Amino acid sequence: MKLTKEQILEIKDQQSRTSQTKRVTAPELEKILYEAVPVLDHGFIRVIDYMGDDTSIVQSARVSYGKGTKKVSTDSGLIKYLMRHWHSTPFEMCEIKYHIKLPIFIARQWIRHRTANVNEYSARYSILDKEFYLPKNEHLAAQSKNNRQGRGEVLKGDQAKKVLNLLKQDAERTYKNYEDMLNERYDGSVVNENELGLARELARMNLTLNTYTQWYWKTDLLNLMNFLRLRADHHAQYEIRAYADVMLDTLKKWTPITYEAFMDYRVGGTEVSAKGKLIVQKLIKGEKVDMENSGLSKREWNELMLAFEMHEKLVQ
Amino acid sequence: MKLTKEQILEIKDQQSRTSQTKRVTAPELEKILYEAVPVLDHGFIRVIDYMGDDTSIVQSARVSYGKGTKKVSTDSGLIKYLMRHWHSTPFEMCEIKYHIKLPIFIARQWIRHRTANVNEYSARYSILDKEFYLPKNEHLAAQSKNNRQGRGEVLKGDQAKKVLNLLKQDAERTYKNYEDMLNERYDGSVVNENELGLARELARMNLTLNTYTQWYWKTDLLNLMNFLRLRADHHAQYEIRAYADVMLDTLKKWTPITYEAFMDYRVGGTEVSAKGKLIVQKLIKGEKVDMENSGLSKREWNELMLAFEMHEKLVQ
Amino acid sequence: MKLTKEQILEIKDQQSRTSQTKRVTAPELEKILYEAVPVLDHGFIRVIDYMGDDTSIVQSARVSYGKGTKKVSTDSGLIKYLMRHWHSTPFEMCEIKYHIKLPIFIARQWIRHRTANVNEYSARYSILDKEFYLPKNEHLAAQSKNNRQGRGEVLKGDQAKKVLNLLKQDAERTYKNYEDMLNERYDGSVVNENELGLARELARMNLTLNTYTQWYWKTDLLNLMNFLRLRADHHAQYEIRAYADVMLDTLKKWTPITYEAFMDYRVGGTEVSAKGKLIVQKLIKGEKVDMENSGLSKREWNELMLAFEMHEKLVQ
Amino acid sequence: MKLTKEQILEIKDQQSRTSQTKRVTAPELEKILYEAVPVLDHGFIRVIDYMGDDTSIVQSARVSYGKGTKKVSTDSGLIKYLMRHWHSTPFEMCEIKYHIKLPIFIARQWIRHRTANVNEYSARYSILDKEFYLPKNEHLAAQSKNNRQGRGEVLKGDQAKKVLNLLKQDAERTYKNYEDMLNERYDGSVVNENELGLARELARMNLTLNTYTQWYWKTDLLNLMNFLRLRADHHAQYEIRAYADVMLDTLKKWTPITYEAFMDYRVGGTEVSAKGKLIVQKLIKGEKVDMENSGLSKREWNELMLAFEMHEKLVQ
Repeated sequence: MKLTKEQILEIKDQQSRTSQTKRVTAPELEKILYEAVPVLDHGFIRVIDYMGDDTSIVQSARVSYGKGTKKVSTDSGLIKYLMRHWHSTPFEMCEIKYHIKLPIFIARQWIRHRTANVNEYSARYSILDKEFYLPKNEHLAAQSKNNRQGRGEVLKGDQAKKVLNLLKQDAERTYKNYEDMLNERYDGSVVNENELGLARELARMNLTLNTYTQWYWKTDLLNLMNFLRLRADHHAQYEIRAYADVMLDTLKKWTPITYEAFMDYRVGGTEVSAKGKLIVQKLIKGEKVDMENSGLSKREWNELMLAFEMHEKLVQ
Repeated sequence: MKLTKEQILEIKDQQSRTSQTKRVTAPELEKILYEAVPVLDHGFIRVIDYMGDDTSIVQSARVSYGKGTKKVSTDSGLIKYLMRHWHSTPFEMCEIKYHIKLPIFIARQWIRHRTANVNEYSARYSILDKEFYLPKNEHLAAQSKNNRQGRGEVLKGDQAKKVLNLLKQDAERTYKNYEDMLNERYDGSVVNENELGLARELARMNLTLNTYTQWYWKTDLLNLMNFLRLRADHHAQYEIRAYADVMLDTLKKWTPITYEAFMDYRVGGTEVSAKGKLIVQKLIKGEKVDMENSGLSKREWNELMLAFEMHEKLVQ
Repeated sequence: MKLTKEQILEIKDQQSRTSQTKRVTAPELEKILYEAVPVLDHGFIRVIDYMGDDTSIVQSARVSYGKGTKKVSTDSGLIKYLMRHWHSTPFEMCEIKYHIKLPIFIARQWIRHRTANVNEYSARYSILDKEFYLPKNEHLAAQSKNNRQGRGEVLKGDQAKKVLNLLKQDAERTYKNYEDMLNERYDGSVVNENELGLARELARMNLTLNTYTQWYWKTDLLNLMNFLRLRADHHAQYEIRAYADVMLDTLKKWTPITYEAFMDYRVGGTEVSAKGKLIVQKLIKGEKVDMENSGLSKREWNELMLAFEMHEKLVQ
Repeated sequence: MKLTKEQILEIKDQQSRTSQTKRVTAPELEKILYEAVPVLDHGFIRVIDYMGDDTSIVQSARVSYGKGTKKVSTDSGLIKYLMRHWHSTPFEMCEIKYHIKLPIFIARQWIRHRTANVNEYSARYSILDKEFYLPKNEHLAAQSKNNRQGRGEVLKGDQAKKVLNLLKQDAERTYKNYEDMLNERYDGSVVNENELGLARELARMNLTLNTYTQWYWKTDLLNLMNFLRLRADHHAQYEIRAYADVMLDTLKKWTPITYEAFMDYRVGGTEVSAKGKLIVQKLIKGEKVDMENSGLSKREWNELMLAFEMHEKLVQ
């Protein structure tokens, strides 16, 4: 990731300002405020603003439960309790705002999380940067054979080279033709003085989906965790996971107690169905169970066995 | 409004803390942060936290429109433009959190605005305060004769006294019986050592709707304005308007430019239908129009005449 | 529950109409459409309208996954898969609308689920019915000793009688005074020809929280299940659970396959934290674990043991 | 637009089924249910399902206002009143579901309306159709000179041809390379038996933004009108307006009374600011006003003059 001179100056300027505030602050997050953390080849994530911290969650839970809450002696105990029992509203009391640069095909996946506020760079209004995502060799994976939504082994030498070439050439050519249609280069120079430029809202349709876009994305802590739970998961596409991983780190700096509870109960945890519970009970009692008499489908059975690391019981 | 000693200390404590932050701050709002502004007889509004200010709106609009926006030379011009053209997302980039004490029947009206985060004091968990709303004499209005949803003239002496007495006695009696059923007074003392107390989640049903409750209420600037547009309006019930008026003042301290545009375009403005536009056009040209040939219903006609202060044209 | 003559006629009228439609229909739900299923002493739930059925979920999932989905051979297999992996959007494709009569204190709990559309009877506009909830003897429970949010044993004879009397008298007195302030009885007769009535929007504040209100409540299938998961749970207050139980039954008639998956994965299932997983793994291997060396708090430990029915391992 | 044989059969099959229902039906909408109405060169809109009609709005408003509403004698009068006074919840009681095929760059604009449910065809999972949007000659407009977000005159002969060629060639080449990377053609045939295919979730990034995608899109009537108000407006990009126009027609068939009120109050109406109201008042009185002493900016002044068709007063 290379920032423009303008961007570097803007970030320095933002970071150099300090004010006094009576609001709660998150000191670890303040340290990286405005900083552009690189993601993929040209993308970044910047925390631009935030509201609240772990104590805000505790404070609003105590408003809800009144004097009753005082029994839970520690903030950490209370936050764990709220997480375990799926209490949602106290976590909505914190808010965070990111500035994110990301490829369009990832933006399209991201935007499906609707409970967030978004301001995206408008290609109807302005010309998009000449930047597109090209995967590193180790991420050029083949289609998975047994999972329609996943990746298999990494492509080898020649084929990898061929794919990368195609991606690069197509992105460059379509971008050049985008400029030609606009009759304007990204630097503002005109291509042909005697011609009109195609409307920006039309010309943009020639760009490929790996072109980078950027947006401001603001959400509350509850919905951030819902996002991370899905997108930092190993089922998520690598390219969005790369962003989620950086965001997990900002979560840790922002609300460290909540982060810990989140990792324990949501990310590292598992769910067991009613039928699955019966099987686990039998296993604990040392009774014999196998897939055939379990009432589970093969898929369910394997998922349950994996959750509790009983690889020896997996069924082909 | 009387705060408990505990509350006063908590507010002082919150106000005495100051931290350094790199975030944008709203200096006028900082001055009243945590302060309990009285509303009605026992209610209050406190701003507890906020995120962003007028410049945050401008900043996110400029991300959306890219280099293109630079043409609009001033922040104020840009914010006015966004307001006039119903742009919504830039205003979602600011967030505010209130702590509010309010009568239950008003809380029920308020909660219909769903795009906000709420943590309410739980009467399932804790005992509600012995505080209920009793209107001042000048607010004891009769039912309006011609508007099913409005107030008419103020009740006179004896009848006003009678009404107030009924409200007061009923609230006090039901509260006392609430304590008796709980077998516990608000101060924690037990009523009868030999009896069990009714579950709190049940006993609360005996309270009247003017009992006070409290909550944390967090929303973004766009939805705050949607709320204020409806609730600071003269059609709104006086008791909720009293809260909206205080919040309008916090809006002014927080985002003064947005406040001004909001007052001009939303609060002070009006809407004119397609049919209404034709009539206004004729009026400007000096042509004669009357309700009969206007295509409007009597109600629509009168609303249009009132909007442009042509009282002489009102139709009975 | 007693319906008025008017209501009975309206329901009959609605049920007698039949039209032809090309939309998917849910035959079992059609059978009870518009019917008022009684809940508590005066409440009811009616299904008023619906859109989609189990096949709509399958259909939209197949649009998402394209030809790929055909591998999952059955609708039931696909719906189970979607439920297990927390896919949300296909379940949002079905919608249901209820007409519900319920006590105000329950309505206040209910409305916290914000992702629904609501039209409530307006006591600002019209006079509320003279109906209030009085619990049956077996539901008059004492406050739980060890759970601030729960119920303990049922109140005995005399105390139960006393509590019921208080609830009844207070509701009746406050309702009578409500009428007096309004200067109008519920049947429309005027109390005192020489007096004005207090505005309805004010008089309503004298009513107790067990007064019944009613509303139309519309939500999609995903959010209905989120509601039921919390409110049909044994931690929920009995009075809202009574409604949730009836709604579970409508879910079964509407989308029987989804209902079954919901009962297996959500209602009957459990979640296990990362730490909890390690303990279950040890238990399965027959290793010894106890609370002290588990890394869990006493509360967490007991919740885990209960989930897998190991009552003998509960810690006091 | 050409449908595949499969699609034509599916539509016929859906249209041939009829069931009995006790729900309200919208007969005019039933006539076009499932039908694929063509939009742009390869896109379409199909109404797939709906819930409620004009009477549902009236019914829920009457639940809200109780006996009070009976005064408004007609359904049409009530719906107009609700629209004029921005009542929102009754319009949320109707729901509609569309199946839409549209170019990706339009889908990206569309998805910004977050209050809808969406299931999009997944290019992570399946291969996208070989279909891309190419504008007709009359829509190949140049960038507007004075509106950064708009179109100016139409491109002439040679330049138009050049632009169309570029769009066509780039779309075809990137699609072909997409197939090559996948090592699979759209018809399922393998390109090279000895090679692996790139994961679908990666290969899709090579496609251009005019490639068609499809989704199920479900929303309530209120949010549909919010969408149409913005997207059927002349400020909207032509390509999304083409969809909005077809949807306006479905609105008319579904809820004709609401449609009429919507056209009168929202689409054909205008808003006037507080300052604007003073100017209109002066104009009606025959007083002289000009931009300089109006307190309006040039832009605001011109917008006001245009709204009331006073072209002679426009200021350059």
